Amino acid sequence: MTTDTPQDRLARAKEASRVSARLTSDEKVQALESIAHALEESAAVIIEANARDIENGRRDGIGDALIDRLRLDEKRVVSLASAVREIAALPDPIGQVVAGHRMPNGVALEQVRVPFGVVGAIYEARPNVTVDIAALALRSGNASVLRGGSAARESNAVLVGVMRGALERAGITPEVIQTVDDFGRDGAKALMQGRGFVDVLVPRGSAALIETVVTESTVPVIETGAGNVHIVLDETAPDDWAQEIVVNAKVQRPSVCNAVETVLVLRQAAPRLVPLVASALQSEGVAVHGDDTVMGLVSNVIPATEEDWSTEYLSLDIAMKVVDTLDDALAHIRTYSTGHTESIITTDTRNAERFLAEVDSAVVMVNSSTRFTDGAEFGFGAEVGISTQKLHARGPMGLSELTSTKWLARGSGQTRG
Amino acid sequence: MTTDTPQDRLARAKEASRVSARLTSDEKVQALESIAHALEESAAVIIEANARDIENGRRDGIGDALIDRLRLDEKRVVSLASAVREIAALPDPIGQVVAGHRMPNGVALEQVRVPFGVVGAIYEARPNVTVDIAALALRSGNASVLRGGSAARESNAVLVGVMRGALERAGITPEVIQTVDDFGRDGAKALMQGRGFVDVLVPRGSAALIETVVTESTVPVIETGAGNVHIVLDETAPDDWAQEIVVNAKVQRPSVCNAVETVLVLRQAAPRLVPLVASALQSEGVAVHGDDTVMGLVSNVIPATEEDWSTEYLSLDIAMKVVDTLDDALAHIRTYSTGHTESIITTDTRNAERFLAEVDSAVVMVNSSTRFTDGAEFGFGAEVGISTQKLHARGPMGLSELTSTKWLARGSGQTRG
Repeated sequence: MTTDTPQDRLARAKEASRVSARLTSDEKVQALESIAHALEESAAVIIEANARDIENGRRDGIGDALIDRLRLDEKRVVSLASAVREIAALPDPIGQVVAGHRMPNGVALEQVRVPFGVVGAIYEARPNVTVDIAALALRSGNASVLRGGSAARESNAVLVGVMRGALERAGITPEVIQTVDDFGRDGAKALMQGRGFVDVLVPRGSAALIETVVTESTVPVIETGAGNVHIVLDETAPDDWAQEIVVNAKVQRPSVCNAVETVLVLRQAAPRLVPLVASALQSEGVAVHGDDTVMGLVSNVIPATEEDWSTEYLSLDIAMKVVDTLDDALAHIRTYSTGHTESIITTDTRNAERFLAEVDSAVVMVNSSTRFTDGAEFGFGAEVGISTQKLHARGPMGLSELTSTKWLARGSGQTRG
Repeated sequence: MTTDTPQDRLARAKEASRVSARLTSDEKVQALESIAHALEESAAVIIEANARDIENGRRDGIGDALIDRLRLDEKRVVSLASAVREIAALPDPIGQVVAGHRMPNGVALEQVRVPFGVVGAIYEARPNVTVDIAALALRSGNASVLRGGSAARESNAVLVGVMRGALERAGITPEVIQTVDDFGRDGAKALMQGRGFVDVLVPRGSAALIETVVTESTVPVIETGAGNVHIVLDETAPDDWAQEIVVNAKVQRPSVCNAVETVLVLRQAAPRLVPLVASALQSEGVAVHGDDTVMGLVSNVIPATEEDWSTEYLSLDIAMKVVDTLDDALAHIRTYSTGHTESIITTDTRNAERFLAEVDSAVVMVNSSTRFTDGAEFGFGAEVGISTQKLHARGPMGLSELTSTKWLARGSGQTRG
């Protein structure tokens, strides 16, 4: 596959996107079913390639957590196929009429949903993302060009090969799914600089990866950002909601972007809520990093430094700070939040409504766990990522966020006066 | 105004955007009325500053067309004020509930329209854009940071000063409207690199300006592109529609992006339509640049070169080419179109529907003049620009394209299982 250039791949994806754009919903479902079936049939060869990645990873000394994300076993290959079937079952967004009216002169205007064309993705060593993005892109009529982490290179090469073979058997050009993994850094660069070929580029992974893609890209990027997520407890926060929501938001799955990282407690509530919430967290194995006030109220607290307020731990660590007023909590969030999700626990309507109005994040919550910021929880069925930028998409992105629109105008000889 | 840095201005705009985001619709209307009134009251000083720009421009040898775009007289100042009042009269997009449902666990989800925050604009020497963008941004709850062409610097400084004074009199912080004109190139650079301060950047002007902004920006950009606009005439195109639509699309206002630049005639229709349409254009003073077939059918045709197919003339020039089939016309459009607007004149349903489906442009038309691609014509009341990219906005952009959304979640103690 290396006799061509990354630009050749982009050009072929662009050409193929004209085919994928015109597939009917039935044809796309058949293609995805063919992919799901091929993944199951090819489990052995996928797992074998993955074993090579894991061996290389161990040799290169990558950590256990990364090895775990990288690993594909029989069960995980089955989940890859199920994920593809779930995506196939989603309603097709293409062709949906978004708006429309007749102009006073009689021209009929219609705004319809169309595919972007070519969706690029740059992500880390998680082979499931390879399948997810290719399937989501295809369901929404797009071609995809994938660039995964080099630690998953062998797995990705096989996964892409399997998917392309399945497309061919379904009678669709395999060029609809492309990888540029085999070009290393040049593949990523071609994606980021592919003006005219890449219609949208989605980075998924660490803050550093996202920053690089945003900074170096000349193509449109949807920023799927890190989550330095806050929960505020005010003086009216009920004991049970405060404790249950904070513990759930931290402990239920600490490694994901919607897990809470900092709890801000209003001073009046501190003597009641800090010991309650901190000890509940500690009994779940969470290390509490607190300011002086927190340290005065609970034992076994690690002194928090400036760095803690801006850290997305993604682990069983949490920062806890006592603030004088809701104004101070809002100011802290303005300074340190990544604009992903923030929640307030309160029964005071004024505080709730002020929080909803003033916090400038993709998702702003009252009395709910931040873990709900998720495409599946929001009812989108699948998730492309969670956008923390304000352009095009904000918050969990579903299939329709992988589409654009165009205007159709049907006239009968009208000219402008 | 030069004791601070461009970054200081961005920071003040960001801070002020928290104020503008929470203004009620009534407060925004009052502020805009105050601005409109102040522009009328300050006509003399605005015209005086503009005279200095024109004097400088003449000295620097800028052309008559640019001088005309730059000029503000009594009548044009009145139009500036009217434009502001028209923007004030538009419905407020902020607070609109775009989507919403209850999650199965009872959490109430709502997606609401919110301002972007800070809207940046980089544009050429047209002082009306200064007022338009500031007013559109304010109507949609945004702060704006403006960078106009250096040839309009004196006019823009006075216009921004007048608008800021009007905001103060309306009791709103003047920091909601900022210029970085006085920093020259550094001002533009600060806007393009203003991550965390500039939520969206809109370039308006030449292809070269837009290319620079897209390439150098690390902030999200909405590309408002040039229009290399095509009209296709097939064998069923009625004489009158073909002639009237092409002439209207070229002649009614040749200097704008929705004016047609190339006419593609299907070979079977060429003997009938090329002489008819070309002579109608020529009698309106249009220079026809044609291929060999066109030259064989009409006199006084300038031989078209490869360059003509990719040129956005913006003048009384048009390119005309005879193609064998609709496939060839579609291929020509794929190669040369900027994705703005294309129209086909036909009474054949198959050709019409195929054109609508396959042409990948912001607006695709049948039997209508391309001059209709316009915010006012589409019923948006005002226009931020015409987006030729696929992310966030495509085609004419109204007020709601200057907004983002956020998700509000109202729960009562829900946690994720």
